[in-house]
Amino acid sequence: MNTINNPDRSKWSEILKRPTQTVADIEQTVHKVFDEIRLTGDAAVGKYTQAFDGIDLDTFKVSAAEMDAASAEISQELKEAIALAKKNIEIFHAAQRTERVVVETMNGVNCWQEKKAIQKVGLYIPGGTAPLFSSILMLATPANIAGCEEIVLCTPPDKNGNVNPAVLYTAKLCGVTQVFKIGGIQAIGAMSFGTESVPKVYKIFGPGNQFVTVAKQLATRYQVAIDMPAGPSELLVYADDSANPAFVASDLLSQAEHGVDSQVIMVSTSEKMLELVSDEVEKQLDELPRKAIAQQAIENSKLILVETEETALELINEYGPEHFIVCSENEDYFVDNIMNAGSVFIGNYAPESAGDYASGTNHTLPTNGYAKQYSGVNLDSFMKQITYQKVSEEGIKNIGPAIELMAEAEGLQAHKNAVTLRLKSLNQ
Amino acid sequence: MNTINNPDRSKWSEILKRPTQTVADIEQTVHKVFDEIRLTGDAAVGKYTQAFDGIDLDTFKVSAAEMDAASAEISQELKEAIALAKKNIEIFHAAQRTERVVVETMNGVNCWQEKKAIQKVGLYIPGGTAPLFSSILMLATPANIAGCEEIVLCTPPDKNGNVNPAVLYTAKLCGVTQVFKIGGIQAIGAMSFGTESVPKVYKIFGPGNQFVTVAKQLATRYQVAIDMPAGPSELLVYADDSANPAFVASDLLSQAEHGVDSQVIMVSTSEKMLELVSDEVEKQLDELPRKAIAQQAIENSKLILVETEETALELINEYGPEHFIVCSENEDYFVDNIMNAGSVFIGNYAPESAGDYASGTNHTLPTNGYAKQYSGVNLDSFMKQITYQKVSEEGIKNIGPAIELMAEAEGLQAHKNAVTLRLKSLNQ
Repeated sequence: MNTINNPDRSKWSEILKRPTQTVADIEQTVHKVFDEIRLTGDAAVGKYTQAFDGIDLDTFKVSAAEMDAASAEISQELKEAIALAKKNIEIFHAAQRTERVVVETMNGVNCWQEKKAIQKVGLYIPGGTAPLFSSILMLATPANIAGCEEIVLCTPPDKNGNVNPAVLYTAKLCGVTQVFKIGGIQAIGAMSFGTESVPKVYKIFGPGNQFVTVAKQLATRYQVAIDMPAGPSELLVYADDSANPAFVASDLLSQAEHGVDSQVIMVSTSEKMLELVSDEVEKQLDELPRKAIAQQAIENSKLILVETEETALELINEYGPEHFIVCSENEDYFVDNIMNAGSVFIGNYAPESAGDYASGTNHTLPTNGYAKQYSGVNLDSFMKQITYQKVSEEGIKNIGPAIELMAEAEGLQAHKNAVTLRLKSLNQ
Repeated sequence: MNTINNPDRSKWSEILKRPTQTVADIEQTVHKVFDEIRLTGDAAVGKYTQAFDGIDLDTFKVSAAEMDAASAEISQELKEAIALAKKNIEIFHAAQRTERVVVETMNGVNCWQEKKAIQKVGLYIPGGTAPLFSSILMLATPANIAGCEEIVLCTPPDKNGNVNPAVLYTAKLCGVTQVFKIGGIQAIGAMSFGTESVPKVYKIFGPGNQFVTVAKQLATRYQVAIDMPAGPSELLVYADDSANPAFVASDLLSQAEHGVDSQVIMVSTSEKMLELVSDEVEKQLDELPRKAIAQQAIENSKLILVETEETALELINEYGPEHFIVCSENEDYFVDNIMNAGSVFIGNYAPESAGDYASGTNHTLPTNGYAKQYSGVNLDSFMKQITYQKVSEEGIKNIGPAIELMAEAEGLQAHKNAVTLRLKSLNQ
């Protein structure tokens, strides 16, 4: 592993640099598919499903019979595991509900703020051999708590036109209203524009490859919102001598197995711990089925030795990791002062996997440095806030003169007039 | 004015259609300016300030002396009006603070969610004869309550290299940390990439013309977030016979004076009220200094007669207006059931101007139908949420087996292993 000793601050941005992706050629493909979907709807979706997924489908919607049949293919053990995770996710996200904010800012001027569900949301779940049913738990569960009326899910069909039963089982369990066998760009296009069979949604959530990522980005030009910009997954571990090197190594590797572009960083004030972890990584790597992927990610990873905890914290805040594990005797210092991170895992018994599946926190998190300005998915991601004001005769008397002055100073006479008319009527 | 009687539901989307803008040629200009700013920083900013604003500036930063001098140019009356508005905005936005959400989802699994300020934010305030100092109140006030460390403001210089004193006075009052005389595309570029004099920010807020709008959109490709997608301002009024036609007309006109592309819609179950308002609009229009603009917007406006309040509500939710005024005997019906709107103004004494300036609600609102999925600017717009999990030995025993099963089912062996190692160590 690549160890960096006490790097000079001027080198930080170079060391912490993430890989950049070129997307220009993908954009062209996305524009083409989107244009066709807008023109011919399902016909275009069918054409690209055949082209990209190699299957000719008559109907995209998963039937009630298919949904029901999925349950029989899932082991009782896995069902119980999913139920436990769902319950924890529900508890944590339901606790995020906020009350209406009600304030009388001046006598007769009543203002309030209320959150309402986004009525129609779309979830994208990638296909392949590793079906990410955990992402359905993370997205459909809060969507349901928020009260979204329509929760549409798109996921690519396999070569036989089927969808992984764990995906269907979890979708049904979590109250997804319709599931469609549509993948990639055409899924994002169908949910953005609507087709004969797929409803248009207002916001699209979920992970995906670079085609899906670019399609989601471009969808935002067509009145659709997305959960957040995407990028390769990443983990930063801060560990001092109180950490267990085998545990830390297993966490670094669990991140590394996601993909060759995964970002894995360890920061420590202890040279010894860095060495122990490095040795453990080599040992554990050999036993992984996804060794080829993990090894490549590990080769790009960085072990950074710093002199003080203060320097470590600054460097971590500068990076803004998606996942941040802290195993330190001085954990409170890091927990209290971290400003930029997606989700924080504290102590020797909080692996990233805990948040990926079952602790209750959401695993859809800002990566690529976006933790500096974006939240991970949470209950509010499925809602929007509306403000209200009810102003009485007394109220307009209290704020009216100020409005008149400000509107006039901004050169907006009609804005002023709307108040003047009302004030005059009250003085008659 | 253009009156539409009981339109068939199939015609709604046509009637409620907003103007679409073509931005392809603007995009090219933005790319060019951005590329130069990335390469040469302040030099490029200077070049485009000369090209677009016609002034050659040595320094972009407004000096402390200039900031101080602005105060003398503002009347005491206007200062008091600004102070009143600021206080109401502060009260309403401070009330939006939320507590840490803390939950023990299972024994030993402690999860919490905490909001932290976005450390660096940028505000853009357009220039011109009507300086929008009210937008500074709406953006800098919540930024300060949130705890943003750096609040940068860019606004274009006039031909003499000066900035309107009301802008400087309000910026200082609201705790803006630095003001720069930079406008348009080059302002958004400078805040996105950072230059020798302008700090790079994490999120950019504020109104602007179509150049600024496209620049903000493209900035999102460079690790910058923006408040929301922009579009022409719009107002929908629902008024029944309990409304005052002169008041309603003044509200429609206050929206219409914003620009020729302003969207103005009135919906009613009362043919008589529609006629009265239409007559009043003609009468009031003649007296407006911005009559030419308002008249053109009014020509594109729509008075829509519907048979029932239920139909009215459905139509309004379908449109999702930025500003929604309801003057109805049955106001509770609309207030309780509105799902898509930026801000709602209730009763005969709540003109849109109230929220634009001084009631306390924010005037930076989703337009162009984005009220279906976006919130207006609020305290949370200046913060992001971080989740935390602290798992004890007992905790990992409680959730570990479920994680192992789910990770295995998703084909992520290293994720499973991170838990297995820990469980094994506890069973030794």
